[in-house]
Amino acid sequence: MPSMDEAEGFQVDSAETHTQFHKRHYKLKPFEDYDVDVKVEACGICGSDIHTITGGWGPKLFPLCVGHEIVGTAVRVGPKVTLIKEGQRVGIGAQVYSCGTCKQCKNDNETYCPNVIMDTYGSKWPGTGIVSQGGYGSHVRVHEHWVFPIPEKLATTSVAPMLCAGITAYSPLVRNGCGPGKKVGIVGLGGIGHFGVMFAKALGAETWAISRTRAKEADARKLGADGFIATAEEGWEKSHKFSFDLIINCANSSKGFALDKYLSLLDVHAKWVSVGLPEEDGPSIKAQSFIANGVLMGASHLGSRREMLEMLQLAADKGLQSWVEEIQIGEDGLRDAVTRMKKGDIRYRFTLTGYDTAFSKPPRPSL
Amino acid sequence: MPSMDEAEGFQVDSAETHTQFHKRHYKLKPFEDYDVDVKVEACGICGSDIHTITGGWGPKLFPLCVGHEIVGTAVRVGPKVTLIKEGQRVGIGAQVYSCGTCKQCKNDNETYCPNVIMDTYGSKWPGTGIVSQGGYGSHVRVHEHWVFPIPEKLATTSVAPMLCAGITAYSPLVRNGCGPGKKVGIVGLGGIGHFGVMFAKALGAETWAISRTRAKEADARKLGADGFIATAEEGWEKSHKFSFDLIINCANSSKGFALDKYLSLLDVHAKWVSVGLPEEDGPSIKAQSFIANGVLMGASHLGSRREMLEMLQLAADKGLQSWVEEIQIGEDGLRDAVTRMKKGDIRYRFTLTGYDTAFSKPPRPSL
Repeated sequence: MPSMDEAEGFQVDSAETHTQFHKRHYKLKPFEDYDVDVKVEACGICGSDIHTITGGWGPKLFPLCVGHEIVGTAVRVGPKVTLIKEGQRVGIGAQVYSCGTCKQCKNDNETYCPNVIMDTYGSKWPGTGIVSQGGYGSHVRVHEHWVFPIPEKLATTSVAPMLCAGITAYSPLVRNGCGPGKKVGIVGLGGIGHFGVMFAKALGAETWAISRTRAKEADARKLGADGFIATAEEGWEKSHKFSFDLIINCANSSKGFALDKYLSLLDVHAKWVSVGLPEEDGPSIKAQSFIANGVLMGASHLGSRREMLEMLQLAADKGLQSWVEEIQIGEDGLRDAVTRMKKGDIRYRFTLTGYDTAFSKPPRPSL
Repeated sequence: MPSMDEAEGFQVDSAETHTQFHKRHYKLKPFEDYDVDVKVEACGICGSDIHTITGGWGPKLFPLCVGHEIVGTAVRVGPKVTLIKEGQRVGIGAQVYSCGTCKQCKNDNETYCPNVIMDTYGSKWPGTGIVSQGGYGSHVRVHEHWVFPIPEKLATTSVAPMLCAGITAYSPLVRNGCGPGKKVGIVGLGGIGHFGVMFAKALGAETWAISRTRAKEADARKLGADGFIATAEEGWEKSHKFSFDLIINCANSSKGFALDKYLSLLDVHAKWVSVGLPEEDGPSIKAQSFIANGVLMGASHLGSRREMLEMLQLAADKGLQSWVEEIQIGEDGLRDAVTRMKKGDIRYRFTLTGYDTAFSKPPRPSL
């Protein structure tokens, strides 16, 4: 039976057995003054979870309970917590700690902290041997800075995937001028990409979805796309050269990617920002690829607390909803969901629910 | 004997014979209302000249007279010319035409024109079969937009290399915020890099030269560098992480380049802008390379007319001088200079002079 410093969750033991989830108890980090305990009620299944448990991003600390698109209730708050109230519905994303004192942390760049980046799962809490465990479990314990109140209008299952996929798309949009009068492209219509289209449109930009085929065109237009480009079509880039102000690359793979053609879509000094992190080696890139229009290529990592709160408010104000399919958390549901995620068989996100069923016996002592 | 529509210059006939220059007459483009004829008095030898005549950048239109760091006298101006006066000392850089009517051309981005980019040598003048020939010759004929009055204070031999190498370094500096309070790095202390250090310092930034060894440290400090990093030294990147606001990569090769270490020097969302165009394939690049600090990688192509005039004025105001070695233009001087350029045996630029000797007989008819 778990103590107050334990949680229960579904862990994977190795990359080779990544479809086998085992319900186990594990230790949480020691509770500190700024910590919040969150009782999980829903969790999105992120592409990162799959890259991690399959070993695609390299060796990880197994056994591991992944999940970092968490919605739940704050059931305990430390004595110095001011941002979160006990009983509040809150979210947690993919990062749960940074140093909090450096220039980056004080400048809304805490996801780029050079000193400490704690991932929600698979990182060691400083000064302990304890590996962080994620939202495929009953409880998560983190510093209040990384816990976000959820506006009332947003449904729990719908908001969950916004905590990682959503903010991953939102931050590079707002940091790079997405708004009225701008033409913005979203490459790759998966979990992150569907938020990219939704948010770019909500922010007021002329929004184009860029996908291999037209299979997802109807979806893209429902999500708000003003236009659609299918890169399997001959000459697809020709009528758009020098026209995009920003492209967010949400593709999860760079295989067979005609990067030069994509870059030719951009206006002078416009940016190509990648948020997908493919497993395979990237293409060979020369300065010559960037020179015709002086474009810039970069990447973006999650988004700040401030941006997270803004994004949630934008979603509430505009009535934005993630496209999610609910899955009952458990050995079977997780196996099926992970298998379908690997095949890309989801439009556009799974949210795990039914936590009370999965974790009801034995109950955690009330807090 | 050359007519008014001819010039005489030193041409190379093939990549295999790139050290053999042949003095020949060739046709200039037809003279048009906005054209200016420039009698060449000096020309810098640019790395591009070498990449071109050796075939390193791919097949070219031979026979070819290269040279695009040209200073001379405007000896004839078309009836609609307003920017240049006959008799004026002027410069010409690496580009000599763009469409002049598109959004980019009207927006000080004429070096990124999507419609026409005429290089000073080796491009075909639209609507003619005539290949542009450069400044290793007696005369050049171009549209006035691409002809720049030279401030009186600047010496002809010293200013010549600024017309390509100089503006190549200057434009990305000013377009990316180089100035007081910024820490700027210049990678690669060659022709372009020596201007990078000089201009970054003149613009008020804390300027660091970044080179393989300390062989050029004394030079860098004379050029204005506040600091020097030698990348052959173990742990060179450690004390500079997240500290640079901008790095201009002037290196001419990407062989053995530890790109991730260089990128780790940059502050969040800071930029790495390449202006060298290596011949070999570039490194394999993943989004993961950019994500720790959300940096951007790009390239820059020359600079606008407005920037060229600003740069020349800055050089005049601050008394900036290129470090040049003069070479008598001719078969021998060109062979020797090209051979030394290939070995990097120059600090930091050759300027061809003695045009009156080389082209005095037979004289071109007076204009």
